[in-house]
Amino acid sequence: MVATSTPTATLSHLQCKECGAQYPLAAMHVCELCFGPLEVKYDLAAIRAQVTRETIERGPHSIWRYRAFLPVESEQPIDLGTGMTPLIRAERLGRRLGLRNLWIKNDAVNMPTLSFKDRVVSVALTRAKELGFTTVGCASTGNLANSTAAIAAHAGLECCVFIPADLEAGKILGTLVYRPTVMAVKGNYDQVNRLCSEVANSQGWGFVNINLRPYYSEGSKTLGFEVAEQLGWQLPDCIVAPLASGSLFTKIHKGFREFVQAGLVADKPVQCHGAQAQGCAPIAQAFAEGRDFIAPVKPHTIAKSIAIGNPADGVYALDLARKTGGQIAAVSDPEIIAGIQILAETEGIFTETAGGTTVAVLEKLAKNGHIDPDALTVVYITGNGLKTQEAVQGAIGEPLTIEPQLGSFARAWERSQTLERLEWQEVLV
Amino acid sequence: MVATSTPTATLSHLQCKECGAQYPLAAMHVCELCFGPLEVKYDLAAIRAQVTRETIERGPHSIWRYRAFLPVESEQPIDLGTGMTPLIRAERLGRRLGLRNLWIKNDAVNMPTLSFKDRVVSVALTRAKELGFTTVGCASTGNLANSTAAIAAHAGLECCVFIPADLEAGKILGTLVYRPTVMAVKGNYDQVNRLCSEVANSQGWGFVNINLRPYYSEGSKTLGFEVAEQLGWQLPDCIVAPLASGSLFTKIHKGFREFVQAGLVADKPVQCHGAQAQGCAPIAQAFAEGRDFIAPVKPHTIAKSIAIGNPADGVYALDLARKTGGQIAAVSDPEIIAGIQILAETEGIFTETAGGTTVAVLEKLAKNGHIDPDALTVVYITGNGLKTQEAVQGAIGEPLTIEPQLGSFARAWERSQTLERLEWQEVLV
Repeated sequence: MVATSTPTATLSHLQCKECGAQYPLAAMHVCELCFGPLEVKYDLAAIRAQVTRETIERGPHSIWRYRAFLPVESEQPIDLGTGMTPLIRAERLGRRLGLRNLWIKNDAVNMPTLSFKDRVVSVALTRAKELGFTTVGCASTGNLANSTAAIAAHAGLECCVFIPADLEAGKILGTLVYRPTVMAVKGNYDQVNRLCSEVANSQGWGFVNINLRPYYSEGSKTLGFEVAEQLGWQLPDCIVAPLASGSLFTKIHKGFREFVQAGLVADKPVQCHGAQAQGCAPIAQAFAEGRDFIAPVKPHTIAKSIAIGNPADGVYALDLARKTGGQIAAVSDPEIIAGIQILAETEGIFTETAGGTTVAVLEKLAKNGHIDPDALTVVYITGNGLKTQEAVQGAIGEPLTIEPQLGSFARAWERSQTLERLEWQEVLV
Repeated sequence: MVATSTPTATLSHLQCKECGAQYPLAAMHVCELCFGPLEVKYDLAAIRAQVTRETIERGPHSIWRYRAFLPVESEQPIDLGTGMTPLIRAERLGRRLGLRNLWIKNDAVNMPTLSFKDRVVSVALTRAKELGFTTVGCASTGNLANSTAAIAAHAGLECCVFIPADLEAGKILGTLVYRPTVMAVKGNYDQVNRLCSEVANSQGWGFVNINLRPYYSEGSKTLGFEVAEQLGWQLPDCIVAPLASGSLFTKIHKGFREFVQAGLVADKPVQCHGAQAQGCAPIAQAFAEGRDFIAPVKPHTIAKSIAIGNPADGVYALDLARKTGGQIAAVSDPEIIAGIQILAETEGIFTETAGGTTVAVLEKLAKNGHIDPDALTVVYITGNGLKTQEAVQGAIGEPLTIEPQLGSFARAWERSQTLERLEWQEVLV
């Protein structure tokens, strides 16, 4: 199933990341010779001939302004306004952490389902249609299921998603509402993922992060492209991003490299830091121990969306951090909750546990001197807090209940101000 | 407290909508002579001198591209990427409803807090800073509290919000996380609103929808501006929008009129339809009974975000629907839930109860022949479904729980397909 190429398509072939073997642009993801992962290769001359800063700026306000860098052939990709999320100057958070040039790339408001997964799914389902699939699916820790179900609904594709049975209520409901078939698997993500590989083979479905993975994962490059464009066509000095499978992290960097190769930005080193939860930190552990292999772990953390114990791209993430002078650090569940709170309080952005992890790691790296206070630093917030409400419930206080009378308000206000003064006195003691 | 005007400011004065009395551009909202509502007036010649389609298109990708039409003086308004949400061609929903030219304006993904309220709050808090306020607040049915708390946090303003105590959990949590003071008032929205008027006077705070209301409400015009621009600089034939206070509805139309007056779009009639929940439908009732006054009601509906029993702009909304040949219709709570589901299934958009109300009313109007099947129709979806999860919980089924083995999947899949066939047979019988 290979679609006919259009005049503007820039795709060349699939290639094994390990042994270099080449394959046609089909629905496959593993090298038949060495079992290495396959990656999409492009015709760089064709990209250069099509693309300038101006052609990109004239394009749609979505990931599809970078279509020449994405693995699709269609002139009409699925476009629900995904991407081009705000890059916000984080002055208040920066002051709190002692960072003078801090920016937040806010995919907590990505469209349509409020996580960066809308990027990869828009690409994967566009490619799935090109390859002739009518049923699509995914193995998901929650956000991917939301996104696959929603975008499949819009595109009129049948959809069957697989999740660990213990996911947060908001993520399950935020999938069911689009009416896919939802399989809740009694097991962790790694077991779900293994099952989906078998189902992909037996049913002939297009699984966005399995047999369509080479196309899917390319969507994350747009998080690199957008930051470079939104910074006025330059690369940052330093990024901090969450690590689950490790794919997002490496693809952001691939996006930066491709912009350099296409002559769109000047080359410069970008320090790449990765964030994990201590309850599932196989990549951070390998980093700390100086290993170049990943020892799988059993996840146990509130940061479920990044709880992948056997990360497919872990070694590539490890390699990238080391090569660029970055760190891979892990934080505890209480630190993750504090990370969610500090981001909300200072910047008005409500992120899920993965974002809390990233902010907490940013804080740790800033404190330990791993981030230069004057470096142009971009922190990637990848999902919305409304999906993991359980994580902060109980940690953020309660409303003050009052009667609808001015006197009742005045008494409650007075009490709250007194309490705040007492808290400050405790801080000062 | 009136800020100094900048060279590009287009503001002129406040004016009573009823008696025409003029006032300076201060924090006030009620005419001292006749108690009518005050509205911002602009210098139309100054707007015309500054604005063309091209200047707008070159502006920021947010509501601030329409700054000349908004009641602020600052060159640096609070910009968190609010506005410019997608206008999506709704082919699948259109087919279901028999509408051939249907579009969805999707503010369920507005930034930063996923409702149209981010528009009005960005304007109100920019103006609040210009007027010297350091503490801001609001009377809210939920979305406004989310937005005020988040944007105040980003802007470094103190914040105290007032909500009815029985709001949905997601809306309360989605406010608390930004660390404002939250007053949960034992009463309905109309009681909360009255209390806030007293607090605004006694504390000297800037309440976005009370003493800052003339500025605040102007933010909703951007939902008219954006649709006109996104349709390629033309007005739609027909709109459907939810009615709470009635302000949003009338301001969308005001946006259309101002674009005509500024020479940006050709004049044409736009049929304006309003949507209410039967459990709080004072405007729909007045419309049905041919009255030109609103009889307040006690709200009792799952659509809490639009449950205003005594709507401030009700009579203006009533007048607009009648003047433009529109309808104001109401739907039941089960119809609202079905509206949420049909939008999710067909378009991959998960909206809250207010959006379910709007879709259900759209369906009703289409069935009853009140909307021409070929009319360019825009339906306004104003908030995100993750905030009102209670409403659909139990109505959208459950995942199929399976073991992490192919056999377990195969049995569950077979059962689900058999059930689906049986359901179809029931439909066909």
